[in-house]
This record gives sequence, structure tokens and C-alpha cells, in this order.
Amino acid sequence: MTSRDYYADSYAHFGIHEEMLKDTVRTGSYRAAIIQNPHLFKDKTVLDVGCGTGILSMFAAKAGAKHVVGIDMSNIIDQAVKIIEANGFKDTITLVKGKLEDTELPIKEFDIIISEWMGYFLLYESMLDTVLDARDKYLKPGGLIFPDRATMYIAAIEDQDYKEEKINFWDNVYGFDYSCIKDIALREPLVDTVELKAVVTDPCILKEINITTAKKEDLTFTTPFRLKSTRNDYIHAFLAWFDVSFDCTHKKVSFSTGPHAKYTHWKQTVFYTPETITIGAGEDLTGTLSCAPNLRNNRDLDITISYQCGEFSDSVDYKMNGSNRI
Amino acid sequence: MTSRDYYADSYAHFGIHEEMLKDTVRTGSYRAAIIQNPHLFKDKTVLDVGCGTGILSMFAAKAGAKHVVGIDMSNIIDQAVKIIEANGFKDTITLVKGKLEDTELPIKEFDIIISEWMGYFLLYESMLDTVLDARDKYLKPGGLIFPDRATMYIAAIEDQDYKEEKINFWDNVYGFDYSCIKDIALREPLVDTVELKAVVTDPCILKEINITTAKKEDLTFTTPFRLKSTRNDYIHAFLAWFDVSFDCTHKKVSFSTGPHAKYTHWKQTVFYTPETITIGAGEDLTGTLSCAPNLRNNRDLDITISYQCGEFSDSVDYKMNGSNRI
Repeated sequence: MTSRDYYADSYAHFGIHEEMLKDTVRTGSYRAAIIQNPHLFKDKTVLDVGCGTGILSMFAAKAGAKHVVGIDMSNIIDQAVKIIEANGFKDTITLVKGKLEDTELPIKEFDIIISEWMGYFLLYESMLDTVLDARDKYLKPGGLIFPDRATMYIAAIEDQDYKEEKINFWDNVYGFDYSCIKDIALREPLVDTVELKAVVTDPCILKEINITTAKKEDLTFTTPFRLKSTRNDYIHAFLAWFDVSFDCTHKKVSFSTGPHAKYTHWKQTVFYTPETITIGAGEDLTGTLSCAPNLRNNRDLDITISYQCGEFSDSVDYKMNGSNRI
Repeated sequence: MTSRDYYADSYAHFGIHEEMLKDTVRTGSYRAAIIQNPHLFKDKTVLDVGCGTGILSMFAAKAGAKHVVGIDMSNIIDQAVKIIEANGFKDTITLVKGKLEDTELPIKEFDIIISEWMGYFLLYESMLDTVLDARDKYLKPGGLIFPDRATMYIAAIEDQDYKEEKINFWDNVYGFDYSCIKDIALREPLVDTVELKAVVTDPCILKEINITTAKKEDLTFTTPFRLKSTRNDYIHAFLAWFDVSFDCTHKKVSFSTGPHAKYTHWKQTVFYTPETITIGAGEDLTGTLSCAPNLRNNRDLDITISYQCGEFSDSVDYKMNGSNRI
């Protein structure tokens, strides 16, 4: 039973767009940031990077934009063309099919760039580097970017039961030893929702990205963290999530994908540790997290977490790749 | 956010094997059919077509097979090699990486062929044609095939709420008209679980496949159906599922993927009708279902359902493809 990628080469994968559109935190936040700020969009030129079905472009058009250009390399844009026309935006929105890097846009300078570029763990399969290219190539000096800030967080969680099901399962499969797959499973961050009550420590900011000034090099980083435990408990995994905000908007629209916030299709990202860590209230779990695109496949993400807590210390290499997409 | 196929070219997609192994109806039925019938496997040669992680090969070895050959084209077989060795079957099980069609096997004649080849709607992305090739090329006269029978069923269901969510959703997306995607969504069978109480009619056998005698041509078929309604209700979709049985076993092990049976990862397959059909208790809904591999991409399935019920009649072309894999 194989799972295949129709996204880039057919219409079939509208399922992913259905999931994103039905993510009301995601789409509703973009709508609020755009529709509620007509004073920012009135008579402006707008570039929508990775426009998909064109929903953000239509929000911008409704907010009063003079002209919107949406670009996407996926065939979904063929549907976007029909959608734009069906909703009467044919003259306001121009859609371009292709890679931004090697495409000539009908407008050379834009007042505003809008894009929903975020991936799991913020950066996995994200389009951020394309957004940064678009910013440097097409955004007017002082132009706006929606969103303009992203912040990554880390904490530690108690997750005994699910670790049993997802990781230790491989120790005994119908009586057989599948531990070679256990090793692979452990090194693959799990994209899933975690209950707030599973969080054992205070969260710590891992990385803050200012989209208006960030450089591609900033997306490869090593950052230290210090997590203070709020109770006596066992730790089975690190948990990462991100917040996104539109600071340039009047009301500073923002949303979080954390365990304390409403469900989003990004869920959270779980990094199981080989050993179970015992921690006491007030104790610190310290470490560093390194993140870099994989050298062979730059859409994959190599993440290393080194940590120290009392007598517990370890360093684990994780790899985010397609298998999280199930 | 794209979804990609790692199955054929990396280890990463062990997730699909996890899902299949954790499907206890599936794996438990194969285990029962094999382990509980040592008299059939004692000192026999066994070919495992599409062996994956090697679970069925190990069942056969435990059941007393003299030698088992497992073949799979996916890189998962590199893990299977480690698993076979870790469990002490190195001398009993030989694993071969490649396509059966263009691979030379170490044994030229087998007493038994085992394979878990079934896909969604039984035939979508199924390996059945490879199993039939293996049978014709490698199975001894009178040899056994596990499983040796598959039966497809169809019924009609009431599914107002979910049809609203999955199909009519596209009529109004944040106030915009997305009906072009509604058309695509309607023509794409939905793989999902349906509650038994949603079934409005008696089921009807669509197709019976005897694996020991079937030919590839049999997998392209047009078959009539007659569904008698058990109550006054509305019909929003047709529902298809399949049963699989090991008739050659002493106890005739079998399992069903229908709405009356325990959950399996195959779930059921839903074909929404453009119009809602009104039907009365005892009334018949008649029609024909045609199924054929797509000519351009033979892993896709073209399915046409024509139906007639009172004044309602229609003919709808459906297409099963990768986008169901979410």
C-alpha cells in the first residue's frame, strides 16, 4: 500500500488544501489580518507566494488591493484560476504557474507580500526561503509581509503511553524483534497533538524569525535551551511548536500551534528521547537544539538535540522527512 | 505543504507498515491461517509476494516451512533482512529485492504462495496481478495460495452530514465559490469508515475472485447490482467493501472489511451520488458498476456507477488515485 505525491503533478491532492482551508485558526487568522486591515491594502499591489487555491489572494482583493499576483508551482493553480474567475476577481488577481526563482512576474515591485509558507516544526518543507527570495527581489522598501514574525518553542513532556505505542511497539511485533525499526522510529520526530497536561516544564523560545529581515542562513541554527520543571515527573520527549504573528496589522493578529492553543493542522512535533528522564519540581533540563536542511535532500530537516539533566545526558540526531505525512 | 512518496525509495515510510502490522484483523487473520495450519506448511517451500517487513514469511517459517522466499521492491526489505536475522530465520527465509516480473528467484517451484496484496476497494494499487504472475510462473500444480478468495460487496448509505462536510463544503469556502473542486471531490471515492446504521439497503455481491484461477482480464469488469432498501430513507452514496478468505485452511479463516465488521486499515469506500435519492422500504435500487485500470496510469482505477431508482437515474465516473492517501 503506497502513499504517493500527486500534489506537484495533478489535481488529485486537493485533500491537503481541504485540510488547510478547514484549519480555521490558520485561514481565519489570515482572513482577520487581511480583511480587517483595508487601510493597509487599499490600492496596493500584493504578491501571494504559494497561492494554492487563491484564498489569500481573494482576501487581499476583498480588502481593496489594486492588483494581486498569486504564484504557485502546483497544478492546484489550474483550479485557482477557475475559482478566481467564478468569484469575479479575474481583473484584480493574476495567477502565475511556476517556481518564483525562474519566473517573470507581470509586476516588478509589490507593496505587500502575503504567504502561508509554514510547515511542520515551522521549517519542515517550508516555503520560507522562497518568501525571503520574493522579499529581496520584489518587495518595495518599507513594504509589508504577512505574516512578519514566527517564533519556535520547546518544552519537555511526559508521554509514557504513546511512547509505548509508537516506539516500544517495535520491541515485540507478534512475538518478533523489530528493534531495527524502533531505531528509525525514534529518530523521526512525530507530528501529533499533545495535551497541555503532558507538558512537564516551562516552555523556552528556541528561535525568533523576523520575516522582514531574516536571511536564509538564519534557518540553519544551533540554539541553547533551559527548561525548568514545574513538577516531579518523568520526561519521555521534547515538544516543539511555533507561533506566527502579523505585527504590521492594527490589532497585531497572531496564532499559536502550541499544546495550550486550539487545534491546527500543524499539530505539535514530538522528539522522543531514548531514555526516560526523571526530573524534580524546579530542576532544570538544559541543552542545545541544532537545525539544518539535509545536505542530500534540502527539503529534509536534520535536527540534533543534546540535553543534560542531573545524571541524564544524551545527544540524539533526528531527521524530518516524508514519512510524517500519513 | 506537500505529501510525498518515500515508500519506494527510502526507509522513512515505515509508517505504512506500522499501520498494517497494527491492523490486528489483517495480520491476525494471516497469522491464524498460517500458524494454525502447520500440516499445510510442514517442509513446504513458500513464496511471499510483497513481503514488506517479512511478517508473513516468519509466520510461514514458524509453521514449519522448509524454505521461504520473500520478495519486495521497496527498500523496506533492507529492514526485513535485519528483522529476519534478529529473529533467527536467516537460514529458512531468503529475501529478494526487486520486481517479481524481472527477478530470478533462488527456487523455481513453490508449494505455497502467501501475499497480502489487497488495496483500498480491494483493487486500488493492489498487487493482485503480480500474485497472479507469481502463481502462473512459480506455483506447483495443486499448490496453495494464501488467501485464495476475495469478494467485493456494494450497498447504499444515508450520509447527509458527512456529505455536507466533504462535498458541499466546496459550495461556500469563507464566502467564496469553490464548486470546481466540488466536482473533483465528488468523483473521488472516499476511503473512510461508515457506521452500520448508515446502511439503507441489503448488500449485494459485486465480484468474486478465486485467486487460484483468476486471470488479469477478470480485474476489468462490469457487473450489475440490485439493492433492496430495508427502510424509508435518503441515499447519498454507494458503499463498497470486500471480504478475504483462506478456504484452503482447515478452519477456513476469513475476515471482512465491511461496516458490520471490526475496523481495518482498508476501511470502506464511499461513492457519493450528485443527487440525493429518495427510497422506500422494499424498493429496489438497480445499476451496474464498471471497474478498470486507468489507461494512462494503470495504478489508478476508473470506476463508473450507473443507477436507477424510481424516477432517479444517473451515471457517474469516479477515479481512485493517490489523493485518498492522507
